[in-house]
Amino acid sequence: MSARQYAALPDPFGMHRGGALRGARVAFETWGTLAPAKDNAVLIFTGLSPPAHAAPSLADPSPGWWDTMIGPGLAIDSERWFVIVVNSLGSCFGSTGPASIDPATGERYRLDFPELAIEDIARSGYELLRALGISRADTILGPSLGGMVALAFAAQHPGAARRLVSVSGSAGATPFAIALRSLQREAILRDPAWQNGNYAPDAPPGTGLRLARKLGTITYRSAGEWQQRFGRSRVAGVRPPGSFSPEFEIEGYLEAQAAKFVAAFDANCYLYLSRAMDRFDLGPLAQACVERALVIGVESDILFPLDGQRAIAATLERAGVATRFHAMPSIEGHDAFLVDIPRFSAVIGDFLRAD
Amino acid sequence: MSARQYAALPDPFGMHRGGALRGARVAFETWGTLAPAKDNAVLIFTGLSPPAHAAPSLADPSPGWWDTMIGPGLAIDSERWFVIVVNSLGSCFGSTGPASIDPATGERYRLDFPELAIEDIARSGYELLRALGISRADTILGPSLGGMVALAFAAQHPGAARRLVSVSGSAGATPFAIALRSLQREAILRDPAWQNGNYAPDAPPGTGLRLARKLGTITYRSAGEWQQRFGRSRVAGVRPPGSFSPEFEIEGYLEAQAAKFVAAFDANCYLYLSRAMDRFDLGPLAQACVERALVIGVESDILFPLDGQRAIAATLERAGVATRFHAMPSIEGHDAFLVDIPRFSAVIGDFLRAD
Repeated sequence: MSARQYAALPDPFGMHRGGALRGARVAFETWGTLAPAKDNAVLIFTGLSPPAHAAPSLADPSPGWWDTMIGPGLAIDSERWFVIVVNSLGSCFGSTGPASIDPATGERYRLDFPELAIEDIARSGYELLRALGISRADTILGPSLGGMVALAFAAQHPGAARRLVSVSGSAGATPFAIALRSLQREAILRDPAWQNGNYAPDAPPGTGLRLARKLGTITYRSAGEWQQRFGRSRVAGVRPPGSFSPEFEIEGYLEAQAAKFVAAFDANCYLYLSRAMDRFDLGPLAQACVERALVIGVESDILFPLDGQRAIAATLERAGVATRFHAMPSIEGHDAFLVDIPRFSAVIGDFLRAD
Repeated sequence: MSARQYAALPDPFGMHRGGALRGARVAFETWGTLAPAKDNAVLIFTGLSPPAHAAPSLADPSPGWWDTMIGPGLAIDSERWFVIVVNSLGSCFGSTGPASIDPATGERYRLDFPELAIEDIARSGYELLRALGISRADTILGPSLGGMVALAFAAQHPGAARRLVSVSGSAGATPFAIALRSLQREAILRDPAWQNGNYAPDAPPGTGLRLARKLGTITYRSAGEWQQRFGRSRVAGVRPPGSFSPEFEIEGYLEAQAAKFVAAFDANCYLYLSRAMDRFDLGPLAQACVERALVIGVESDILFPLDGQRAIAATLERAGVATRFHAMPSIEGHDAFLVDIPRFSAVIGDFLRAD
């Protein structure tokens, strides 16, 4: 069972850095009901890897990635809001991306996909609202990559949303984050199975994707969390001399996380989305592009650190946006929004319930 | 010109976790003169990758890795101290390691090298002192891996050194550090050129070593330093759509660092040393194993963080060692001891000049 819906994008869909897509679409899911005045939409952009299935619904009761955040009576309350989660343009869960068929050739785009920018993902969300007959979202919201997209949306479509929530986002990648993402991409690019992007769907560059995802997982969490959770615990098993097989629980955890990712995500899509994050650089915002904003950063986030979160809030303030900044005292690192639900629910719920 | 000297280890040299080496040796270099009372030796263990050539000397005037720290009138003053730097057992710059010839077979050890422990590197330093006729070092000192070795030396050979300096060391790897090293090893192990350890010397697993070193470099420095130094500066060059070649200065920096390492270091030695760091777990120290200690940690070090440095100092205090703890306010991260020389010189020089 799928709750996935699709919206066609304008054809052609001109890309921010050149080129255009023909017959492009985005995949999305919704929760709740659009009010007759069409003024209760909350549009959510996702992080790098998840699909639009953020929470269960009647059409698809399977668990999502933000189950405890979106739903009746939850912080993003589907009894009040018409909640839309959109799969990023360039991703591989229904929206058009490098793994999609290019109608001009009948083959997958692969590296012929045009350069992808965060601004393109933002515009695809804007066009989705228009396709749904919504001229103004109540709130645009995004964690991580989704936070970058929400900021790009505000910059590019001033007035198209009343409020903005950026969760552990970024207004411009730091060289530390660029270094990590560059290394993740290199692991894929140097995997012989990558084949210059021309791998068969059933023979992906698994080693490169595995290394990339493990490095991601290391930077999404925090040293403090893992100290509490794993310490120096060993996994069972005998390792003869000269064997370098996993020995500590943390290594088994990384392997499990990576295996899930390799089975689900397309390598070329990963490369495009990853580089779009490196290249994003917000710049100043138009005056009052949104009315109110909430910016959340996590104290233990090494990838999108707190000073960058403060910079986002300052940029919004300078544009005349009434901005709340919240430094979340969580040990869970960049991924805290997926884990530390009570804290995030309180702050996001309060903001959405206020004017 | 080489200043490298060799000392034979006891034959056989029994290893801490089983097995033994035959005909093993360590490579070392020295600066200054051993006093007639043989009471002025400062024995330095290195980090993961450097050779014993830490500074220029008459026999080898080429630059070393701690040029501005070791020499006449410098913090580690070769006019007062007989300074010995030893290449770690298991490394590939003259000391016996996996890339050395096994006398039993006439072939390189490769993965037949016995399990390597930090305690083995410590004991090889102790045996070097004995070979030089030194019954007690004035000071044992080590940064990073070398700090772990110095602690293992104190635990294993109580009384064999009067003082100890641990610079950004560790008494036991955190799961965060284990995760990073496990990923570095996996990059090598999954490189098809690794050949289960049986690569030809002129065809090493360069991709794996390159990825491992880049990840190392990312974790040895700090986000703050790179923000100041590189920001979002671009490198010159045109990148056609679909190309993922390096674009930001930080990417060029990582590549340059990695290229030097791939040309110099042996992959199997890297695997053995890396895992030895994961497995090290100091435990309590014997009472008064040394008289005095200096423990230095760096505030921006994400790999061997400050709370771990405090734990080292506490362990030494509990063993009755008069311990100074210094939290270095440097932006340079784990590698600060290689870069932020004025600050380190002041603290280490003061300690060595005191009683």
